[in-house]
Amino acid sequence: MTPTRTQTTFMPPVMEARRWLAGVTFAPERPLINVSQAAPVDPPPDGLRHALADAALTRDDVHLYGPVLGLPDLRAALARRTSQIYGGTVGPDQVAITSGCNQAFAAAIATLCAEGDEVILPTPWYFNHKMWLDMAGVAAVPLPTGPDLLPDPEMARQSITPRTRAIVLVTPNNPAGVEYPSELISAFMALARAHGIALIVDETYRDFHSQPGPPHVLFQDPDWQDTLIHLYSFSKAYRLTGHRVGALITSAARLAEVEKFLDTVAICPGQLGQHGALWGMENLDTWLAGERAEILARRDAIISGVPGLETKGWQLLGLGAYFAYFQHPFAESSADLAKRMVAGSGILCLPGTMFTPDDDPSGARQLRIAFANLDADGIGVLFRRLAAISG
Amino acid sequence: MTPTRTQTTFMPPVMEARRWLAGVTFAPERPLINVSQAAPVDPPPDGLRHALADAALTRDDVHLYGPVLGLPDLRAALARRTSQIYGGTVGPDQVAITSGCNQAFAAAIATLCAEGDEVILPTPWYFNHKMWLDMAGVAAVPLPTGPDLLPDPEMARQSITPRTRAIVLVTPNNPAGVEYPSELISAFMALARAHGIALIVDETYRDFHSQPGPPHVLFQDPDWQDTLIHLYSFSKAYRLTGHRVGALITSAARLAEVEKFLDTVAICPGQLGQHGALWGMENLDTWLAGERAEILARRDAIISGVPGLETKGWQLLGLGAYFAYFQHPFAESSADLAKRMVAGSGILCLPGTMFTPDDDPSGARQLRIAFANLDADGIGVLFRRLAAISG
Repeated sequence: MTPTRTQTTFMPPVMEARRWLAGVTFAPERPLINVSQAAPVDPPPDGLRHALADAALTRDDVHLYGPVLGLPDLRAALARRTSQIYGGTVGPDQVAITSGCNQAFAAAIATLCAEGDEVILPTPWYFNHKMWLDMAGVAAVPLPTGPDLLPDPEMARQSITPRTRAIVLVTPNNPAGVEYPSELISAFMALARAHGIALIVDETYRDFHSQPGPPHVLFQDPDWQDTLIHLYSFSKAYRLTGHRVGALITSAARLAEVEKFLDTVAICPGQLGQHGALWGMENLDTWLAGERAEILARRDAIISGVPGLETKGWQLLGLGAYFAYFQHPFAESSADLAKRMVAGSGILCLPGTMFTPDDDPSGARQLRIAFANLDADGIGVLFRRLAAISG
Repeated sequence: MTPTRTQTTFMPPVMEARRWLAGVTFAPERPLINVSQAAPVDPPPDGLRHALADAALTRDDVHLYGPVLGLPDLRAALARRTSQIYGGTVGPDQVAITSGCNQAFAAAIATLCAEGDEVILPTPWYFNHKMWLDMAGVAAVPLPTGPDLLPDPEMARQSITPRTRAIVLVTPNNPAGVEYPSELISAFMALARAHGIALIVDETYRDFHSQPGPPHVLFQDPDWQDTLIHLYSFSKAYRLTGHRVGALITSAARLAEVEKFLDTVAICPGQLGQHGALWGMENLDTWLAGERAEILARRDAIISGVPGLETKGWQLLGLGAYFAYFQHPFAESSADLAKRMVAGSGILCLPGTMFTPDDDPSGARQLRIAFANLDADGIGVLFRRLAAISG
């Protein structure tokens, strides 16, 4: 019998890694350092919590169905904010709110692809993208990146076939951390447009970009909506992961197709979380700037620690947003190394093998360190533990 | 080019019907009667609102990612409640919480079907089921029901092919209202098991069943999990539609497959809504019994009004939960009639054509009246307006 949709893909890596913790105990003086998760571990600021509580008590509408494509006020606020950040023009009718950014990706693919179509994913890839493509009957065509972990538009061009429907960029990248240069993103936009395919740009970690100014200029193109599908998440910026609020920005025509998908798989995003996201956009700019500064300080702490690790044969391949992507110096596969590090080093991180195709050997040399939840002291401890690992 | 996933299906009917309201004004003495929606219009009771607000303020975990398959306490509570209602045995590891019951259906299909497989849906069908099957590349095989709107297992047997993966029952039925007899549900279970296919039973409206006692005995079969996939929603019982909390009950082995789908399309259900559902199960039994009594009183008001309508040629085909399903006496299609009723009668309801295949003429004679939000007086007004319609 043909495999069912879910049988075509693998078990969720985050859950698999969590299972490595089973039965392992950590001494109080040497607690586990969990750098596996790309998510805040602290709750949102008090003002946002009170806004959510007040809405639950005083607004009836937060408990009832809302529009499939999201709260009009939140769509308008994100349209304004996106226009402002990128120096372009985005209207509320080009914004949909989704139950998280993964769902935005799934919805985009549903509007683009039929069974057997192809989508190009630079590798290392974000595993949930690969999983969804598998279950959607879409071939994920890997686009290997070089030592700088940046995809090459010319190589992408050679991967385009009559079945190709989109190229997906994640910037700042998960898992590799790298921030794609604006010119590179523009080159992919031109490539996608020339071939009549979509360019999906997932900017979940945008708010923690290390550079000031717009991360790209795509929205400054008055015809951006003929090619660009932009994905965003409120989860990281406002610590709302438990409320599931993401977004998708595309043409109004494509949103009419998105609406079919979201109506059947979600009906609407959670109302309270949408109010929280809106309150955050209206009240937390200063707070968010502080969050970004703290992440950038932690990024600096990573950079400071690298030379010490390099003496042990480690190499930092990519760094940005929540992630440092390392090459380890050992002969064993990262899949084994990462498991061994739980008890051996008190570190839980994800191996590169979780982000690469089975036939790509590069992932076996790589580890993703999601450092965002470690302060500078914690990063120091992490580096000492990494340096102490022997082959 | 092959149609994309979303291009294979139709626009969401609820949104289409809402567009009929555009530009129509209603006199204050003759306001619109909206019987199009199968959802509560009032917020949850105060205790539940306070529980949600308290959790937002005092519990950090409600703002952060939770388990993909839902809060362990809620899974356990629903397992106990299901075991108790149905007199069977359901364990917490057989329960998944989803972001609404539509998502539970989508997840079930993803574990059962590959491209080109078939699923049998009695007609009139729930349009979101049809839409999801379209987008999943699964053929929805209609199973026409007779004058009593009950599906016939023998007719279903004749529709089973080597590509059939499941039969879907919705009871109490949306749109038709009918409550499937326990023996009929058992006959479908035996049929599905004999053919090695799944029986999906969507019981979104279970809490408003008119009969005391278990609605079916399937869970009393110690091997239920080899065939049965049960779907449930917390939305109607506790007025939590805006929080998106549904459930799926199946074998633990199938839940491992469900987890792949939910991880990529939702990551996890909203945490706060899950706490609300749990608080509801722990505190609102008496309140919910009152809700059910009120719905049953409204059901009685429908029954009382029917003879007057029958003199005008109308016929009540099905009644239960939130729905009355009528046959109208006019030559025109319900698709035109329903539109005409907005301005003409001040009634918004959905035509049978939205619940039937294009080549099935029965829907053109039928209308769904979602009466649950009308009190007895409102139902009186509704009946007077229906009786006044002329062909």
